[in-house]
Parts: sequence; C-alpha cells; structure tokens
Amino acid sequence: MRKGLLITFEGNDGSGKTTISKRVYEALKEKGYPVIYTREPGGIDIAEQIRRVILDPANTAMDARTEALLYAASRRQHLVEKIIPALSKGEIVLCDRFVDSSLAYQGVGRGIGMDAVWKINEFAIEGHMPDATIFLSIPLALGYQRVADRGNLDRMDQESLMFHEKVAQGYEQVKERFLDRMEIIDASQDVDSVSDQAQRACERIIAALW
Amino acid sequence: MRKGLLITFEGNDGSGKTTISKRVYEALKEKGYPVIYTREPGGIDIAEQIRRVILDPANTAMDARTEALLYAASRRQHLVEKIIPALSKGEIVLCDRFVDSSLAYQGVGRGIGMDAVWKINEFAIEGHMPDATIFLSIPLALGYQRVADRGNLDRMDQESLMFHEKVAQGYEQVKERFLDRMEIIDASQDVDSVSDQAQRACERIIAALW
Repeated sequence: MRKGLLITFEGNDGSGKTTISKRVYEALKEKGYPVIYTREPGGIDIAEQIRRVILDPANTAMDARTEALLYAASRRQHLVEKIIPALSKGEIVLCDRFVDSSLAYQGVGRGIGMDAVWKINEFAIEGHMPDATIFLSIPLALGYQRVADRGNLDRMDQESLMFHEKVAQGYEQVKERFLDRMEIIDASQDVDSVSDQAQRACERIIAALW
Repeated sequence: MRKGLLITFEGNDGSGKTTISKRVYEALKEKGYPVIYTREPGGIDIAEQIRRVILDPANTAMDARTEALLYAASRRQHLVEKIIPALSKGEIVLCDRFVDSSLAYQGVGRGIGMDAVWKINEFAIEGHMPDATIFLSIPLALGYQRVADRGNLDRMDQESLMFHEKVAQGYEQVKERFLDRMEIIDASQDVDSVSDQAQRACERIIAALW
C-alpha cells in the first residue's frame, strides 16, 4: 500500500491559505487523487472544544504559554483522529496550518521562543512532520488589510499589527529552518495564478514523494 | 519582603489530599500564617474551561497526549493567575495536586513516559517547582474503594484499577526522583492523625524554608 502524504499550507493571516488550499483540493480530487482537505480542529469534537477556549474573545487573560499548550493539544487530537488515519490509508492530506503556525505565532509572535514551542509540539506530533509545505508569501500590510475587511474577528485576529509583524518574522525563521520542505509562492498575485502555482507545486511533490 | 512558599499535596486517588490539605490550611490560618489553599483549576475561568474539556465523561476519544497537554495548559493558567501572585506577596500556597500528578497519571498511568511529560510541564511551570510536597501514602485498594464510594465519577475516576495501579507505580518513581522535597505520610491512619502529621510537617517546612 502507498504511504500517505502530508502537505501543509502556511503563511501570514490574509495570505489566502484557506481559499488556495481548498481550490488545490478540488483540483486534485477532480484529477482522481485520494485527497482530503482539513484544518485544525477539523470537525474533531475534542479539538473543537479546545479551539473554542483558545479563540473566545472574552479570554483576554490567557497566558501565552497556556495558548501554546492548547494549540498543541488541539493539533494532537486532530492528528490522531483525522490525519494519521488518512495517511495510513495512503491518502494525500492537505492541511491548512500545522506546526509551523505555532512556531511563528506562539514562538515568535508571543515571544516564548521557537525552541520552547518546538518542544511541546514535538510531544504533540510525535514525528509526524509535514512532507512538504506550501508557503504563501504576502506583504504584511496587504494580509492585515484582508483580515480586517472580513469582520467577525476572533481573539487572534484582534491582535495588533505589531504582533502580526513578529509573526511574519517568525515565519521567516521557520522557512530557513525547514527550507527543504518549503514551496514558497508569491500570494500577492491574483487568486487564479496563486492557486494554479500551488496546484502545480503539489503535483510535483506528489510525483516526487508519494 | 519574605519569599512565598509553594507546598503541594500529592498521592493516589482516595488518599485524602483534599480533606487533609484543607484542614492544614485552616490550622495554619488559625495560627496567623498568610496561607492560601488552592487546586487546579482554582476558580480561574480559563483553567476551568480547560478542565471541563478534560473531565467530560463524553470525551472518551481523548488521546493521552492531548490530555497531558490540557493538564499542562490548565496548570499554567492557574500558576500565572493565582499561585505566582500569591508567592510574590510572600504568601504560603498549599496546592492540592501539581506537576507530580501529571508525571504519575499521564507519564506512567497513561504510558507516555515520565520524561516526555516532564518536558511539557517544564514549559508550563517555567521553573516554579514546589518547595516541598506532602505525599499521602495509601494502599491502592483502600484509596480506590474510597473513590468508588463517593459516586459521581468523572472521566479520570472511571479508569480501571489497573490504571490506578500504574499511577501508584508512577508516584513511586516521582518520590525517588524528587526525594529531597518529599514529606511522606501514612494516609491509611485516621484523618485526625494524618492531618496532624501533615500540619506539623508544614510547620517544619515553613520554619526551614520560608
């Protein structure tokens, strides 16, 4: 049986991760690949309950390390209940955000430090690292504006521009650290071009690794 | 200003931790010590929300590592919002269960391994280890019977006797690892004797360390 493949989508808020990863999913499914699209908490009841605690705008007293532990917990449950079963059937899993998000948001954005956040995520993922990552690169101000235009902001969206600037610096470090699994795409282009490039990148990855 | 003191109470389920620690609290307060009694989640709203996820009897699909991360998250928030502020005022904090519980329950009881669980707790507590620990020692069967008699069991209480046996083995390892901060008391005696010994142990600790 074929080994499954885990491809994650990362990038700053407003880079279009959800739109692009869903389009790539549709295109790959159309071509007959056994592919699933998911994002934490991914319809997993326990992970969903954890996310509600993280994102509740009333929880302003939440400590940065509490937040990082909760993201790791939600990630763990989603991994065990959804990603690992799909991978063990040989499927291709497209996951909208994964461990890199915590390294950038909690490790650098919150100032905890990337190595400390890496340790708890190592505990959570137990070696299940992405095979490849589509990184959607976007100028900070453009991404921030897109998020603000959406309305209905959760506790993370409501963070200051300064926080999102630190997250962007965090992602720069993540890209360097894991350069060999990164496919970097300019996400300031129109959505058709971006999703087209992302799809072609995924097909190359599948051809090479699956 | 005096440095505060963190004294934890540990032991298998049914060893009487809550009863004894509350009695010791009352006795020390009576004597004029600036003492507080707490246990996770300790009335901390965020920690409370996390505990509801952990203990919900419906959450049978919860992975052991998810559980360990959630306990660490709840611990972190309780520490930051309640314990650290009290310690920084020079108070004596009596805490019913703390990091040792996770080492025994998740590390050994759940079979994750003590070192792995220690890593995420190290992240959570950032060096705030107990100054001393009152360990209430009880034969397994007696403790288990006491818990069963209580009724109204949560997800952890409902675990098998085999699980609680592993937890007891875990506590043995914890005692060895942190022997220099352990005050071990035979908790199979009557409650007056146990609380009396626990109180005297606390007063010795306070005289030595506070």
